Amino acid sequence: MYLYLIRHGIAVDLDPLAVDANGLPFGTAIANDELRSLTKIGRKKVAQVADRLGELELTFDLIITSPLVRARQTADILLDRHLSPNLEVSEHLKPSGKLESWLMEWETRVNDNLVSTVALVGHEPNLSEWAELLIYGRSENKIILKKSGIIGLKFTDKLEIGAAQLTCLIPPKYLLVG
Amino acid sequence: MYLYLIRHGIAVDLDPLAVDANGLPFGTAIANDELRSLTKIGRKKVAQVADRLGELELTFDLIITSPLVRARQTADILLDRHLSPNLEVSEHLKPSGKLESWLMEWETRVNDNLVSTVALVGHEPNLSEWAELLIYGRSENKIILKKSGIIGLKFTDKLEIGAAQLTCLIPPKYLLVG
Repeated sequence: MYLYLIRHGIAVDLDPLAVDANGLPFGTAIANDELRSLTKIGRKKVAQVADRLGELELTFDLIITSPLVRARQTADILLDRHLSPNLEVSEHLKPSGKLESWLMEWETRVNDNLVSTVALVGHEPNLSEWAELLIYGRSENKIILKKSGIIGLKFTDKLEIGAAQLTCLIPPKYLLVG
Repeated sequence: MYLYLIRHGIAVDLDPLAVDANGLPFGTAIANDELRSLTKIGRKKVAQVADRLGELELTFDLIITSPLVRARQTADILLDRHLSPNLEVSEHLKPSGKLESWLMEWETRVNDNLVSTVALVGHEPNLSEWAELLIYGRSENKIILKKSGIIGLKFTDKLEIGAAQLTCLIPPKYLLVG
C-alpha cells in the first residue's frame, strides 16, 4: 500500500482584519485560518505539479483532504487533473488532527485492500510529523515538506505506526517542468 | 551547508565468470564488483538526471565519489554536465566505508565554509544509512534510494551526526523529463 502526503499550495496570508462577505470581521483566528484560499500562484503551481504527476502516471485510488479551504482547493485541482476518481474529507487532516485518530478510522479499510494508493492533502507540521511517526514511530521534525510538496510512503505489510518506508520527498520545484 | 547523496546508475551484473582484458578471470568477487561499469541505459539515465539537475540549477562546489568504476562513471557524467568544477575520490565512499571515517576527514573542511554544497556519489545500503545517521543519529533502513536517485540534506549549524534535515529524496523517474 502506498500513501502520499501532499501539502496544500501557497495560500493567502492570515489577516486578522479580514472581513467576511457581510463586511463583518471573522469571529476567530481559527475560523479565519480555515477560510484562507490558494493564491493565484498557488493554484498555478498545484496545477503544474498535478500535470507532472499525471505525466508520471502517479494516480490515487482515493484522495482524502483536510476540510480547510486551501487544502480542499488543492485536492480539487488534483481531481480536476484526473489524479483520482474519489475524494473524501476528513476532520483528522485539520491542523489540530491526530494521526492515531485517522489511523483508527482508516486502517481497517486500507488493510482490507479496498484501496492501495491513497493521497492525503493537509498541513504542516502535521504531514511531516505523520510521516516520521509512520516510518520511525516517533517524530523529530527533520523532514522539510514545502507547499505543494509530496512525501511518499510504502507499507509492505500493515498500515501502522513504524511500518512505513520512505520512497520519496519531492519539493515542488522538481515537478515544475518547462 | 547542503549535502547531496547520489547513488550510482544502473551497472552490469556481477558475473563470477567474467574475464579481464587478458582473458583471465578476475581474482576475487570484490575486485570484480569494483570493476562493474554502468550499462548503456545506466549511462543514459544518469546523463538525463544530470541535465535535469542542471536545468534546476542544482550544482555542487565539490563532488566526492567512491573509487568503484560505476560510481566514478556516474560522477564523471555529472562533471561532464557541468554540475561541479571539482571532483575528488574517497575510499570512505566504498561499500565498506564508514560515515564516521568520512566525517573525520571532511567535517573540519566543510565546517570551515570552504565548500557549502557537496555531492557524494556512492552505494547502497551505505548512502541511505548515512542519511539516517546524519538526520536521526541512528540507521533503520527506512529510506529507499534508487539507482541514480538523490537524497538532499541540510545542515543549519555543523556537519555532524544527528544534525541534518531531509530536504528531498528524489527517485530518478521524477528527474527524467520528456
